[in-house]
Amino acid sequence: MAELQATWIEWLNSRKSSSLEELLTFLRIPSISTADAHIEDVLKAAQWVAEKLTTAHLENVDIVPTGVHACVYADWLHAPGKPTVLIYGHFDVQPADPLELWESPPFEPVIKDGCIVARGASDMKANVLLSILAVESMLATIGSLPVNVKFLLEGQEEIGSRDLGPFVSANIDRLACDIVLTPDGGQWSADTPAMLMGTKGMCALQIDIETASMDLHSGMYGGAVPNALHAFAELVASFHDKDGQILVDGFFDQVVSLTEKDREEILRVPFDAADYQSQIGIDALVGEPNYSTYERAWSRPTLEINGLWGGYQGDGVKTVIPAQAHAKVTCRLVAGQEPEDVLACLTQHIHKHSPLGARVTVSPLQGTARAYRMPADNAAVEAVASVLETHYGRPPYYIGIGGTLPIMDMFLQDLNAYTIDCGFSLDDEKIHSPNEFTRIANFERGAEVYGHFFERLGQFESGKFKP
Amino acid sequence: MAELQATWIEWLNSRKSSSLEELLTFLRIPSISTADAHIEDVLKAAQWVAEKLTTAHLENVDIVPTGVHACVYADWLHAPGKPTVLIYGHFDVQPADPLELWESPPFEPVIKDGCIVARGASDMKANVLLSILAVESMLATIGSLPVNVKFLLEGQEEIGSRDLGPFVSANIDRLACDIVLTPDGGQWSADTPAMLMGTKGMCALQIDIETASMDLHSGMYGGAVPNALHAFAELVASFHDKDGQILVDGFFDQVVSLTEKDREEILRVPFDAADYQSQIGIDALVGEPNYSTYERAWSRPTLEINGLWGGYQGDGVKTVIPAQAHAKVTCRLVAGQEPEDVLACLTQHIHKHSPLGARVTVSPLQGTARAYRMPADNAAVEAVASVLETHYGRPPYYIGIGGTLPIMDMFLQDLNAYTIDCGFSLDDEKIHSPNEFTRIANFERGAEVYGHFFERLGQFESGKFKP
Repeated sequence: MAELQATWIEWLNSRKSSSLEELLTFLRIPSISTADAHIEDVLKAAQWVAEKLTTAHLENVDIVPTGVHACVYADWLHAPGKPTVLIYGHFDVQPADPLELWESPPFEPVIKDGCIVARGASDMKANVLLSILAVESMLATIGSLPVNVKFLLEGQEEIGSRDLGPFVSANIDRLACDIVLTPDGGQWSADTPAMLMGTKGMCALQIDIETASMDLHSGMYGGAVPNALHAFAELVASFHDKDGQILVDGFFDQVVSLTEKDREEILRVPFDAADYQSQIGIDALVGEPNYSTYERAWSRPTLEINGLWGGYQGDGVKTVIPAQAHAKVTCRLVAGQEPEDVLACLTQHIHKHSPLGARVTVSPLQGTARAYRMPADNAAVEAVASVLETHYGRPPYYIGIGGTLPIMDMFLQDLNAYTIDCGFSLDDEKIHSPNEFTRIANFERGAEVYGHFFERLGQFESGKFKP
Repeated sequence: MAELQATWIEWLNSRKSSSLEELLTFLRIPSISTADAHIEDVLKAAQWVAEKLTTAHLENVDIVPTGVHACVYADWLHAPGKPTVLIYGHFDVQPADPLELWESPPFEPVIKDGCIVARGASDMKANVLLSILAVESMLATIGSLPVNVKFLLEGQEEIGSRDLGPFVSANIDRLACDIVLTPDGGQWSADTPAMLMGTKGMCALQIDIETASMDLHSGMYGGAVPNALHAFAELVASFHDKDGQILVDGFFDQVVSLTEKDREEILRVPFDAADYQSQIGIDALVGEPNYSTYERAWSRPTLEINGLWGGYQGDGVKTVIPAQAHAKVTCRLVAGQEPEDVLACLTQHIHKHSPLGARVTVSPLQGTARAYRMPADNAAVEAVASVLETHYGRPPYYIGIGGTLPIMDMFLQDLNAYTIDCGFSLDDEKIHSPNEFTRIANFERGAEVYGHFFERLGQFESGKFKP
């Protein structure tokens, strides 16, 4: 067994130069999914990926038309009784604008100080390729994999994966798996790994308040008629208590509480309050009592006013009693919360707390999404974490984000499979910005780590990773 | 005595036609004080008024340069021991725009259905002239007045009386009086008189809140950092309790409470809640508990948010945590309140109630003014009211306005004299609008009523009307 491992690792080591060349070729394709002018380039990237999967000895390689950009499917399913791992990634990239800020052309990769500078280098062509190389190294040497593997690589992640949902829904048997593994993520730091355990969901609404049929003169009506901004202050202030606790009835009903293990893992992530505050220029850490900042940001639902306006906004004084005011509200949701149910709770709260004389309209806005959270004690999580600990010499941090990645919830709903997000990018690699780059060492490390993931996951029987 | 009264009243009656001609001549002067092009016309109006005062047998008639437009002074001071009445008014008018909406040219008065249509007819050339005619009728028949009279007529009321304050301050002996009487006001209705008992003062400020050095992404920081709009909601909500009671420490300290008589008089003014609400499209009457709507609007200090804005105001959703927000606040003040002291209380309240993490800046804005209120049991008020009751067959309503008329406070501060505001316009006479008009019957009635005022006030010794 030790000899066989050495063999696929040796294969990877002996091919470093040619693998890097493959990555440079991949990076030269300007697969900007948002630009009509690059539709052919996104298809070229799909074709390049399909060809690479074929070279890597994957089977059933298929370029599948899905709306504006195709996705690519491939599999290797000869490990009966073993888990099936679905590897998800994308081969499209963000636009390169503003071009004048690039030190070298975005689609002419340059190697510099151990890094490759190019659009898509960090997000996520290197990460896609290293996952394929991991499979190839084993199939080329051992001739088999310790697990069943399926690839689902798409070409429209950067424009919201809008045609992926229908494709997954329509191909549940084809995509059936025990666990999704995606390298579309990053390490905590150069020497510390990380696993993304949760993303938040979202719901959004607009509140419009009208208190009179016209703005009124405060010299005639001041103190005697409703003021739309007073009404808003009262309503908005009713959402939280002074300590930051959300007071909306039913808001927390569906929340799946953090386990002790979850909380321990979040507390283990280094947090420097002074540094955090000074980076964004805030004077205080606030939020739900009895939770840490990372717990608040990653694991607790939030209710934020994103905009509020009414009355006079110009210079000097205008003695008007505003008759209308407006606010935008978004909630970041956590696992268990149904956006529609939260919207219903909010709407009920708003109407219940509408001040006297306020005509209140609540309009849900686009952008709902469910949250995603993976339990830290899932066997696949523990398996992946143990590989990372062995490889880096320290365990990964279990991190969350407050943002929304609907794809993870989609896999959970449609395929009944958790998604383990573990990639090799670093925060400083300028993704979506000029001079994006990736570190060659991490690209090489990632392929080997993914091979070890397959080995470790292959020690389990199929079914052990399911929710 | 009855015969003498008949005599000056007969004089007025016999001169109706020529007095009306005088008014038309006065109205033909386009004395628009805000327009440079009409500086000569405002001076012409001053000269016309001075000539009329001379014709009316007043003495010491003087056109006094005061900044951009002159004012006119005159007096008759031969009633030793009797009160001195200072009659205040203005001979300037608002611009006539939009001209195309006038049915006849604004400075070519037209008589129609018992009314005179012209700019300045209602505000306030008819009212100025009737006060002069009252004096003239007595001096022309009796040869004397029951009181001492001074006239102070200005040419820049419509542009804020900006040069009047320094003139009054510099001429305190010349303008010394027991009471100021101004016909720059209106009746309650065609058959019910009114007296303006109070105006409100004002102070204003802007509040700026900053919670971070930049807007933050709610997906990264939501629930964990201060939100400038949450801070504002909390701060604005702290200004009032849910019943509308202002909660600012010290805000009411200087307020001179309404007397029982004051409250009775306000309660006597007809108020139709349904009509009031439907006219301005409000669903509820709100405000300080235990006060009526007119008490709130006329006699209680107010704190209104005139504008508030921060964050995203566009279409759809932007998941931003606003780092900055702004609000405009004005307070309408009542008698006793010093604007500077109220600003200090507000500033203290704002800093005391600044939410955690909010960097708050308070900036006073221009526009402070003191309130004015005359006690209903002042002897001059009672005297004027009794004349009105006799003449109209019903007592006047004692009304207030929530707006600011700094001139009344100025007379009180500089001359230590109250101002009785009692004119003969009606609310429907389109002041400041196209097709302004006044009713000829009210013009004629006003001259006679003013004569009766002089008679009744002359029954008192000097000094009885002083604060």
